[in-house]
Amino acid sequence: MKIAVDAMGGDYAPEEVVKGVVIAAKEYDVGIILVGPQARVAEELAKYDCSGVAIEIVDTDEYLVEGEHPAYALRQKRKASILVATKLVKEGKADAVVGAGPTGGVVGSALQVLGTVEGISRPVVGGAFLGFAPKTVMMDLGGNVDCRPDQLLDFAIVGTVYAQKMLNIQNPTVALLSVGAEEGKGNEIVKASYSLLQKSGLNFIGNVEGYDIPTGRANVVICDGFVGNILVKFCESLGETICRWFEDKVKEKLPESDVKEIVDGLLLATNLVSASGGGPLWAVDGVACVAHGRSRFNEIAGVIGQAKLAVKLDLVGSLKAELVAARSKLNMPLSES
Amino acid sequence: MKIAVDAMGGDYAPEEVVKGVVIAAKEYDVGIILVGPQARVAEELAKYDCSGVAIEIVDTDEYLVEGEHPAYALRQKRKASILVATKLVKEGKADAVVGAGPTGGVVGSALQVLGTVEGISRPVVGGAFLGFAPKTVMMDLGGNVDCRPDQLLDFAIVGTVYAQKMLNIQNPTVALLSVGAEEGKGNEIVKASYSLLQKSGLNFIGNVEGYDIPTGRANVVICDGFVGNILVKFCESLGETICRWFEDKVKEKLPESDVKEIVDGLLLATNLVSASGGGPLWAVDGVACVAHGRSRFNEIAGVIGQAKLAVKLDLVGSLKAELVAARSKLNMPLSES
Repeated sequence: MKIAVDAMGGDYAPEEVVKGVVIAAKEYDVGIILVGPQARVAEELAKYDCSGVAIEIVDTDEYLVEGEHPAYALRQKRKASILVATKLVKEGKADAVVGAGPTGGVVGSALQVLGTVEGISRPVVGGAFLGFAPKTVMMDLGGNVDCRPDQLLDFAIVGTVYAQKMLNIQNPTVALLSVGAEEGKGNEIVKASYSLLQKSGLNFIGNVEGYDIPTGRANVVICDGFVGNILVKFCESLGETICRWFEDKVKEKLPESDVKEIVDGLLLATNLVSASGGGPLWAVDGVACVAHGRSRFNEIAGVIGQAKLAVKLDLVGSLKAELVAARSKLNMPLSES
Repeated sequence: MKIAVDAMGGDYAPEEVVKGVVIAAKEYDVGIILVGPQARVAEELAKYDCSGVAIEIVDTDEYLVEGEHPAYALRQKRKASILVATKLVKEGKADAVVGAGPTGGVVGSALQVLGTVEGISRPVVGGAFLGFAPKTVMMDLGGNVDCRPDQLLDFAIVGTVYAQKMLNIQNPTVALLSVGAEEGKGNEIVKASYSLLQKSGLNFIGNVEGYDIPTGRANVVICDGFVGNILVKFCESLGETICRWFEDKVKEKLPESDVKEIVDGLLLATNLVSASGGGPLWAVDGVACVAHGRSRFNEIAGVIGQAKLAVKLDLVGSLKAELVAARSKLNMPLSES
């Protein structure tokens, strides 16, 4: 398996990217194609022992930088490293692409070169959300802010495949996030989505409330990216706030190592989305993974590992099959969505 | 000052209501009119020493019960205790009304008898949200699920009056809850509300993100009741989950009293909305306060205290003045909203 990596993506490129690539090549036993300026990338690579690993360089001088408008930059820089790397997937020379940002550049390249799977118009962002509910994934977490009911259905399908493949849950329960458990409770979008989900053939259990997220009541929790993004960021901030409060309360009462263990555990549990380092862009017709812009070598390596898993589990193929099945149950042809 | 109290409201009526009323009459030095079945209420009152307090009973045999459709029940039971109690305010015989549910009955009676202040069509639910950010109020917390931009403006006005009067903040900062700080980030409603708020004359500081709620970045955080309700319930549940996790981590390491202090503190901070016992229904043209259905005597007494404060601070008058000022700056007559 070969994974194309944008050597110039992220805040610490190319140094941390190259370091992460060397580690990932060994740990995950994958071939890597590093895309970026030949001399600069080779200089970084020379710092490491690369015996026994297959790392090639594809040369390009152009790359995106943070702060550019991604769509505009991709039009100007036709040889941008992320674009070249993504094309390697399209041409069958790589099995997946990994980029550490700008996120808009990774998403834009994926959309432009690979497109989305039939029936879904935009990539979906989601995943496990809270360490206390490891068997719950939330979709969408910020990629799609205003949503139509058929998009919420798409999120439910994507989430079901995620839970099946990544969390090994055979028949994941799916729920709409709302303000009350009863059908008819919710905003207009939720109410309109309810019957679509009922007829979808998914394991739909109705609405859940905010209270039910930490308790893990459903495996797949569906919301628009506006609500999802606010919840994720609120959760991170609340976790950090509680940690500071807690440190202050116990600093004279517990040994430092105990405090650290509790604080680290709580931060990880409430920052799961950040801690994952990134992951696949769902609904792209090919495996494209984003790592956070601030990724260091270990996050880069982790996301390369996720890319390998996505290829191995055939996430894209599974998603296509689920989409066809759900849409045919609804008598809603893919082309109409 | 006289406060009318529905003796039959809530899960523990009339026992806990009457007990709370006796305490509140003494503690807050207010007269009370208890509305309910004369004999039953008098029997409860007889259990307490009522010397030096002014508690009268207004007799009615009808009252609402949990599970009825409130609008329907209010049409059938024209002498329902909550309706009679609310009418005492309208007739000038009481200064405020307090009811412990069903919530729909308290809201319905307030709307039917007192109406809303000119320019706001529905009551607004909101208040201080998180113990870690005591100078931040959120509006709306569940009363209004689908909102128009002019409703978000109403919430901002109500929140400003709340922060001024209840939290003693002279010029409260107001922010829209969104997915990014920059103007133009957000869903359609947020984007459409941005310019309205900019021109409102309120101390509008732009968007805040979920991350900024626990850090107290704005005094008034505006969102629709869908997002607000989900956040409040998520926060309560996450607080409880963290407490259980924490107890497990430290039970062999800290004395029980220390664990209890930390757990109680964290539960209070993350359950502030529940802990408040209830509060005024904002935008009603008169002081009407809801206590939670599960209120015990101390919560009932607390909400009577809040009702007294609302009358004393003339919250309704302040709100009307702020509404006129903000709408005239926007050149948006009250009657159009």
